[in-house]
Amino acid sequence: MDAQVSFLDQLFDAGLLIDTGVPGLYGRSGAFEDVIDRFDALITSFGRQDGAEVVRFPPGMNRAHFERSGYLKSFPQLAGTVHCFCGDDAGHADLLQCLSEGKDWSARQEMSDVVLTPAACYPLYPMAAKRGALPANGRLFDLLSYCFRHEPSQDPARMQMFRMREYVRMGTRDEVLAFREAWLQRGRELIGVLELPFEVDVANDPFFGRAGRMMASSQRDQGLKFELLVPVNSAVKPTACLSFNYHQDHFGQTWGLTTASGETAHTACVGFGMERVALALFRHHGVDVEAWPRSLRRVLWG
Amino acid sequence: MDAQVSFLDQLFDAGLLIDTGVPGLYGRSGAFEDVIDRFDALITSFGRQDGAEVVRFPPGMNRAHFERSGYLKSFPQLAGTVHCFCGDDAGHADLLQCLSEGKDWSARQEMSDVVLTPAACYPLYPMAAKRGALPANGRLFDLLSYCFRHEPSQDPARMQMFRMREYVRMGTRDEVLAFREAWLQRGRELIGVLELPFEVDVANDPFFGRAGRMMASSQRDQGLKFELLVPVNSAVKPTACLSFNYHQDHFGQTWGLTTASGETAHTACVGFGMERVALALFRHHGVDVEAWPRSLRRVLWG
Repeated sequence: MDAQVSFLDQLFDAGLLIDTGVPGLYGRSGAFEDVIDRFDALITSFGRQDGAEVVRFPPGMNRAHFERSGYLKSFPQLAGTVHCFCGDDAGHADLLQCLSEGKDWSARQEMSDVVLTPAACYPLYPMAAKRGALPANGRLFDLLSYCFRHEPSQDPARMQMFRMREYVRMGTRDEVLAFREAWLQRGRELIGVLELPFEVDVANDPFFGRAGRMMASSQRDQGLKFELLVPVNSAVKPTACLSFNYHQDHFGQTWGLTTASGETAHTACVGFGMERVALALFRHHGVDVEAWPRSLRRVLWG
Repeated sequence: MDAQVSFLDQLFDAGLLIDTGVPGLYGRSGAFEDVIDRFDALITSFGRQDGAEVVRFPPGMNRAHFERSGYLKSFPQLAGTVHCFCGDDAGHADLLQCLSEGKDWSARQEMSDVVLTPAACYPLYPMAAKRGALPANGRLFDLLSYCFRHEPSQDPARMQMFRMREYVRMGTRDEVLAFREAWLQRGRELIGVLELPFEVDVANDPFFGRAGRMMASSQRDQGLKFELLVPVNSAVKPTACLSFNYHQDHFGQTWGLTTASGETAHTACVGFGMERVALALFRHHGVDVEAWPRSLRRVLWG
C-alpha cells in the first residue's frame, strides 16, 4: 500500500498525472498523453497486417444493450449508470436547496438511457449482430475507448476512468482461438520491445459475490482468460497490462450472432490497458522520457 | 426535422456514424476519426505559437468540484451524474430480480463521486487554483475531452457524448479579452481554410427555466459569448462549431484563483466542437473524403 501511494505521489510530483481529489480519476500531462499515443501507434503496427475494421465508440453505451449483455450479473459493483435531472422550475429550486444545505440531491436524478462503457467491446456486439450473419472467415474489429469501473484505489494502475484498446475477433471456435494464440505471441513481442519485464498467466475476471467465486474458478479451469502481467506498483503483485479472452459463444448467444454457415459465432479479444502500459514504462524507465533508453525511444518515436 | 433525420441517415448509410439505438450516442468509423484527428492537428498548428500547457482529463470529473462550479444552477437539465451499486449478495439478487422482470432497478444505484464532464474546462479551474496565484502574464491551457450533455436529438450535430477541444486563458481582464479577440480572428481563418461557409454572432448558453431566460439575455447584452456558426443540418439554423467565451471573474471567484498581483483572475476560452466540424466537412464536401477538394485535402493531410 505504501509502495502504491508512493508511486502515485511520484507521478503527481513529476506532473505526469494530476490529482482531481477522487482516487482513480486523474488528469494527464502532455508527456503522458504522448506516450499513450506512441504506444497506440505501436499496437497498430503490430496488428496492421490483419486489416481490422476501425470503430470508435464514445465512453457511454445504450443502457438496454448493457442490461442484455449480462454485465450486471457478473460485475454489478463496477458498473456506472448515468442519471439526469428531468424536472421543472420547482424541481430545480428543490435541487438547489438540497445542494446549498449540503444534502443528498441524488433523489432528483433519474436513470438515463446511457451507461458508462465497462470494456471497449461491449457496444460492438449488438452493432455487429445488426449486420446479419458474419461473412466467411468472420470479422475483426479495432476498438479504443475510455472505460469506467467503480473501484476507487490509490494504485495508479487501477483507475476508475481509463482507456482500453481492443482487437475483437468473431467467427468459428477455431478462428477465434487462432486469433487469441497469435496475439498471445505478439503481445509478448510487443512488451518485449518496450523493454519491460513480464509474465503471462491464466487469470479470471473479478466476478461479484459468492456465486462469483465459482464463476472465477470455472473461468480459470477452462483457460478462458490469460493476462500479460508487468510489475507496476509492486514486484509481488504485478499488474495485468494485456488480456487475451475467449468468450466461447457467450456474446454470440446473447446477440444472436451467427457465422456464415449459420452456427452461433464464437468471439475472442485482446485488450490493452493503455494507462497501465504507460505507467509500466514510467515505472521501469523513469518519469523523464528524454532519459529513456535510446533503443526504446527509437521503437516509440522512430 | 426531416432534413436532420435525412443527414443522420446519410451518415449511417455511409458508415461514418453507427447507430447505437440511443439518439445522440453514436459509434464512429475509422474515416470519421481520421477527420477528427486531422482537424485536431490543424487546431494545434493554429495555436502552437502560444505554447499552451497540454492537459487531458478523462470524461468524468470530481462531483464536489462540479457542485461548486455553479453548473447545476445554470444547466441542471444537461448534467449526467454517475451512479453505482454498493450492495451485497442480497442486494445483487434483488437487482437481478428487478432486471429480469423488466422493472426499474435504479433505486439500487447510489450517486458516486464522479460526474460526467459537461465542458472540457470544468476540471481545469480547481486544478489551476491549487497551484496558487497565476504567474506574471497568467496561464494558457490546451484541453480535449469527451463531454456529456443530456439532450437526446435526431440532429447529428447535437450529440449526448462528443469531444470538445479548448484553449483556456487565465489572467487579467485585458489578457483574457486579447486572447479571445485573437481566437475570434484565428477561428475565422481556421474554418476558412476548411472551405466552409460561416458567420460569427453573439450568442447565449442554454440556461435552464424561467430565471435562465434573464441570464441568457444578460449574457448577450454583455457580449460574453460569440459563436462561429456553420450550416450543418439546416441552412436556416446553422450550428455553433466554435465558441469564444469570456467568463469575467466567475471561475476566478468560484475557485479563489488570483493573478500575480493578487487580483481575482479573469478567464476566457475558445471551444472547438470536434464532431460538429467533422460533420460540417462531410455536409459541405461530401461523405467520401477521397473526393474532397485537393486544396482541402492538402490542408488536412499535408
